[in-house]
Order: sequence, then structure tokens, then C-alpha cells
Amino acid sequence: MGEEVKVFGYWASPYSYRAELALKLKGVSYEYINEDIFGNKSDLLLKYNPVHKKVPVLLHNGKPIVESLVILEYIEETWKHNPYLPQDPYDKATARFWIKFIDEKCFPTLWLAAWSAENEREKVTNEACEYLKTLESALNGKKFFGGETIGMVDIVASSVGYFIRVTQEIMGQNLLSADKFPQLFQWSEDFANCSIVKESLPPRDKLLPFVKGLIAKYQQDNAKA
Amino acid sequence: MGEEVKVFGYWASPYSYRAELALKLKGVSYEYINEDIFGNKSDLLLKYNPVHKKVPVLLHNGKPIVESLVILEYIEETWKHNPYLPQDPYDKATARFWIKFIDEKCFPTLWLAAWSAENEREKVTNEACEYLKTLESALNGKKFFGGETIGMVDIVASSVGYFIRVTQEIMGQNLLSADKFPQLFQWSEDFANCSIVKESLPPRDKLLPFVKGLIAKYQQDNAKA
Repeated sequence: MGEEVKVFGYWASPYSYRAELALKLKGVSYEYINEDIFGNKSDLLLKYNPVHKKVPVLLHNGKPIVESLVILEYIEETWKHNPYLPQDPYDKATARFWIKFIDEKCFPTLWLAAWSAENEREKVTNEACEYLKTLESALNGKKFFGGETIGMVDIVASSVGYFIRVTQEIMGQNLLSADKFPQLFQWSEDFANCSIVKESLPPRDKLLPFVKGLIAKYQQDNAKA
Repeated sequence: MGEEVKVFGYWASPYSYRAELALKLKGVSYEYINEDIFGNKSDLLLKYNPVHKKVPVLLHNGKPIVESLVILEYIEETWKHNPYLPQDPYDKATARFWIKFIDEKCFPTLWLAAWSAENEREKVTNEACEYLKTLESALNGKKFFGGETIGMVDIVASSVGYFIRVTQEIMGQNLLSADKFPQLFQWSEDFANCSIVKESLPPRDKLLPFVKGLIAKYQQDNAKA
């Protein structure tokens, strides 16, 4: 079709991963441009996302779309095959509710639980566990949040199921254990074992040292503040 | 059609106002239930929104939908007449970008600028002005963010254009002046003067003392923390 589809991302970003996984689920070919987000952001990134100056940016036939959740909705509406959102408005609203819950509550709180100062960690960790308990209830016996196949909730939950699990491993935390959250644990295993997910996730042995460095940086910046 | 449509809201909440305005723009009749959110939340509110325990809740034929932005998308998809989101996926993505920007950046920062401690206020106020500058660029000569008529961006921006203007008046701030942001100022005038908006906004003389009390409460809680 001669379409131009590009993703400006960062290899370890759970946010740009969302955009990439969505395109892969749709079978849409794209060119990936890895941005130097901790060093020099490219002129193109700043041009395409002047407000937030962040990855991911999806470029479709010259037009930029930014913010990972906005990008996911755009991909779903533009390439209608292999839908990852339900068609029914109520089911769609339910999916959007969980997406917002993961993005605004679970993921930031779990990330905070990893690097926050010791005197705050217990409180944040308890909060994170409450969120995980609530999130587990959304699985309700299903294999994926989307049912039998990966849906948009699963795409967004990869930030918790993969990126946070790596983070937890580094910090010797084990909030997402089979013991505490059997359904969520099984989901994160099943999700990471889907061939399309497996072949596209940032490799564990490369992600581990990167996240370790990131946590050290956050802790240092926080101690200074 | 024998449809049951109820909104559990709070009369002064910019979030439940969004749900109400959306239904009014669609011409959908609904029953409004005012919740005592600062005292005793009703059993129904807790049943319908067990995760966040917040207004607004839209109840449609017995099914609850929560989170104002999720509710707006649901209303748009359920009652397709008088659309308030563009049909084109790219234009829709652009609208969703601004909605997120208002909801996550402009509104919370402007609210913070109103009640934050004096030593922080200047920094927060400057940040808020930068956001307003960016938001003004989205108008780009149009009467409304949605063009000639009110769109979903306008519905969400009512939190800034009306609720924050009242807040600013109380605090003797004037960030949204005709002088500083002529387009945004004109928009907020035009918006508040639309008959459907005018007749549904919480009355100014009732809102002023309420917000004044709320600011005092926030300042007190903040001083204690």
C-alpha cells in the first residue's frame, strides 16, 4: 500500500513497546528509530512531539501521533483487522477503565515501590499490592485480560507483567509471585510466552543492567532533592 | 426507548459536569443523583465504583461506567448523533492528545497554583502559564477546540475555562486574562455563553464560597503534612 509507518522509540521503554506490540499484532510493517532519550533527542522527535518531547511517536504517512494510549487507539481505528478492543461500547469502556487503572495506578506505584527511599517503601509497597489485588480481579478466570487473545489491556499491562517483573528481580522484591497473585503471575507467564510478544520484548539480559542503572539514578536524584 | 440513564455526581465537580454536559449535548434524558462526597457516599456509589469510590458514575440500563473520560467515550459510542469527537482517526487522536493534556497537565497544575504554599506558588504558576500557552495554540483561530461547535476537548476544558476561572477569582489570580491569553479567554467566554452550557454550569454565586472553603481545606491539610 506504500504506507509510511515509523516508530520513534527507546528499546527499554515500556511505553514505546506498547506501540510496537500493537503494530505487530496488526501485522503492520514499520521502521523503528531508536532515540537517544538520555542524551541527544533527535530534531525529528522534538519536531513531532514538541509538547512532551518524549517517545513513542508514531509517524503515519508524515503525520505524528504521540502518547502511547492515544497511539494504541489510533492504530486500532486505522487498521481495523485483528481488533484488540471489544466492539461493544460497554466492554470497550471496561477495557479503557483497566487501561487507565494500570497506567495511572499500578505501573507508577510499582515503579515507585522499587526505588523509593526505605522509610517510604513499605507504604508504597502496600499500596501497590492493593492495586495488584484489584487488577487480578479483572482477569476473573480468563487467560488474558482480552479473553482468549491479547487485547489492549494486555498490551498496556506488559509494563507490569514484564518490565516491573524485571525491576522486582533486581530489587529482590517478589510482589508478583505465583503465591500472592496466582492469576496475575500465570497471565504474565502466558503473555511473555506468546510468540509475537516473546520475539519483540527487550532481552532480559540487556534490560536488567539498564533498569539497575535507572533505579540507581532515581535514588540518587531523590536523595539530592 | 425505556432506557435507564443515571448520573451519580456532585454539583460542584468539574468531572461529573463533563458527563452531564455530554448527555445534554446528545439530548439524552437522565436522572441526576447528587452524592454527599465529603460526608457519606451512598451504598450505590460504592457498589458501582468499588475501585475509586468517586463520582461521576454513569449508570446505563443497570450497567455502571466510571471515570469521566471513559464515560465521555462511552456516551459518544452509544448515542452516535451529535458527535463530539471527529470521525477521522488522526483528528480523533489529536483531540485525545489535547484531552489528556488538559486533564493531566493544565487542570491539576492550575488547581495547584491556586492553593499551593507561597514558596512553591511562583514555580507552579509559571508552569501553569506554559501549559496555557500550549493549550492556546490548539485553538489556532477556531471558535471552539472542536471547530464551530463544542467537541470533547471543549467538554473537558470546561474544568479550566469555568471552574479554574472561578478559583482564580477567589485567589486574586488572573492567569486566564484577555491580555495574556486572548484566544483562550475568548473561548472561555464563548463556551460559558452557549445556552446548553450556561443552563447547566453550577451557579457562580454558589460555586465561589464552596471553592473558597475547598482551597482553605487543601491549604490546611498541606500545612499539616
